[in-house]
Amino acid sequence: MSTAPQAESKTFLAPTWEAICEAHARITPRIHRTPVLTSHSLNTIAGARFFFKCDNFQKTGSFKIRGAANAILSLSDVEAARGIVTPSSGNHGAAVACAAAWRGVPAYIVMPKNAPAVKCRAVESYGGRITFSEPTITSRQETSARVQAETGAILIHPYDNDRIITGQATSAKELLEEIPDIDAVFAPVSGGGLLSGTCLSAKAMRADLRILGCEPARADDAYRSLATGVLQSLDSSDTIADGLRASLAPRTFAILRGLLDRVLLVSEEEIIAAMRLVWERMKIIIEPSSAVAIAPLLRPGAVAELNLPARADGGAPKLGVIFSGGNVDFSALPF
Amino acid sequence: MSTAPQAESKTFLAPTWEAICEAHARITPRIHRTPVLTSHSLNTIAGARFFFKCDNFQKTGSFKIRGAANAILSLSDVEAARGIVTPSSGNHGAAVACAAAWRGVPAYIVMPKNAPAVKCRAVESYGGRITFSEPTITSRQETSARVQAETGAILIHPYDNDRIITGQATSAKELLEEIPDIDAVFAPVSGGGLLSGTCLSAKAMRADLRILGCEPARADDAYRSLATGVLQSLDSSDTIADGLRASLAPRTFAILRGLLDRVLLVSEEEIIAAMRLVWERMKIIIEPSSAVAIAPLLRPGAVAELNLPARADGGAPKLGVIFSGGNVDFSALPF
Repeated sequence: MSTAPQAESKTFLAPTWEAICEAHARITPRIHRTPVLTSHSLNTIAGARFFFKCDNFQKTGSFKIRGAANAILSLSDVEAARGIVTPSSGNHGAAVACAAAWRGVPAYIVMPKNAPAVKCRAVESYGGRITFSEPTITSRQETSARVQAETGAILIHPYDNDRIITGQATSAKELLEEIPDIDAVFAPVSGGGLLSGTCLSAKAMRADLRILGCEPARADDAYRSLATGVLQSLDSSDTIADGLRASLAPRTFAILRGLLDRVLLVSEEEIIAAMRLVWERMKIIIEPSSAVAIAPLLRPGAVAELNLPARADGGAPKLGVIFSGGNVDFSALPF
Repeated sequence: MSTAPQAESKTFLAPTWEAICEAHARITPRIHRTPVLTSHSLNTIAGARFFFKCDNFQKTGSFKIRGAANAILSLSDVEAARGIVTPSSGNHGAAVACAAAWRGVPAYIVMPKNAPAVKCRAVESYGGRITFSEPTITSRQETSARVQAETGAILIHPYDNDRIITGQATSAKELLEEIPDIDAVFAPVSGGGLLSGTCLSAKAMRADLRILGCEPARADDAYRSLATGVLQSLDSSDTIADGLRASLAPRTFAILRGLLDRVLLVSEEEIIAAMRLVWERMKIIIEPSSAVAIAPLLRPGAVAELNLPARADGGAPKLGVIFSGGNVDFSALPF
């Protein structure tokens, strides 16, 4: 665990609260208002009161449709007609394919060869056209650039894009609208689109709210970037959390440096155990990347170690956790 | 498939609507009001509008707490103090152990040796004391009688008991309160507690409503009993739907003969495919016994073959499906 350094200077102007509200208005007619669930059983285990924002029930099975819908619905007809290209480990690709289908334009998705088969099928089910790359960030970028050059399509980066970030910000916005008095919010971090959006919404709505990113130790670039104050890269990762194998971009790094409180690292074993526990106790399917956001809170004493201020109601801390997705390959379960 | 014969004579006086309402009032403070979920994806596959009553989210992970709570909360203090004994393949046992713990009295659960480990752990987690029997109905009955003789505990049969039936009837009651204009209700059948309760609630609330029981072909005693008009036995079954290995009792048979429209049989492969489809598309955990209730509706043309009356709104049929439980042994998945 590490305390993030304070922001020194911003290379980017962070999206405004107004931009988040505009994004929310734009996408609300198209997406689900996902439920916020509780679990007596998990509360007892952790000594907390959890509020799980269930974007595993979101359209396309993850929060990614929020950003993709905002970015693609924002395009002019002339822009959209060129088609969309994006590199994606899966969920963003499915979301882009879905939103591109709403506009009736082609979606070219560049996926790593090791993406789960279920995520490839999802992209195809929305009409997305897949090009495979090597499972390295370098190869994905090169392949995306090539597809973009060949097709003339507009690149919509999975997270290094303000409209993606403001779209992803709507998940925490909905959570806080429903449970305004939570003490902290936990979200997984990969490229940082969801987490930086979460920071922007949460700090705009509740300046005192603690925001923590959760990251696999096997893909710890955000932890290292925030600890050193220098953007670290991660060329590849084999973490089971297949949605968290990307690394921060300058834009998301700048937002997280300014607003994030901490990054918590979790082991592969903790991810698997957390996923299984949620399946067993809550009877809902979350994918490994979602389990990363609850895993650090299941360690004995973890909630006390957060040192959250005592609540006026004298009760256990109220913790918001964003369950980012539920797309699991059932043919390759770790248990 | 088979059409159930009309009732000729009743050996038992079926529980009244008033008894169901009393049961509902008795257990409501203790149980969850489970959600009714929809799925655009499953609607498209089947050509129907589904309304899934999600008792997989119910306390103890299945509908069984409805009946167990009603029966055990109805006992006098003197009766309850003797303790409770019951034979159960798992979910009823966990429910009895849970409700007995509310009363602070012992629960003696007789389980077949082949019950899933996760269901045994659940019984133990509520403080239930397990005695294993052979996986035959004869052995379970004999073992229950022996435990009852040794302990002096009160036997609460899993389904051959009016208070269990009126408790289980509250699931369909809640479904119909929420979606009053459904055209048919589907529920799994084993001993018939849930299905006969469903018939009683549904016919009291909507005399024209179709009610269909769904049963594994490998445990088809209800189908054969209703086809022949003579109660058939089933000494053992190895269906993957581990909650559906029991057979009808005279009491549930009498109710079903009078009120049930049809029994639909499903293969093991259909059960597994339906379970996986619900997990993938709805992102919720249902156990194989729950999948039995949706499986026959996923066959091509199945909804049309129901020959339901055309709806006044001109839309696809509205079908209620009771997802009976979500207790799955993740160490022994069939995929």
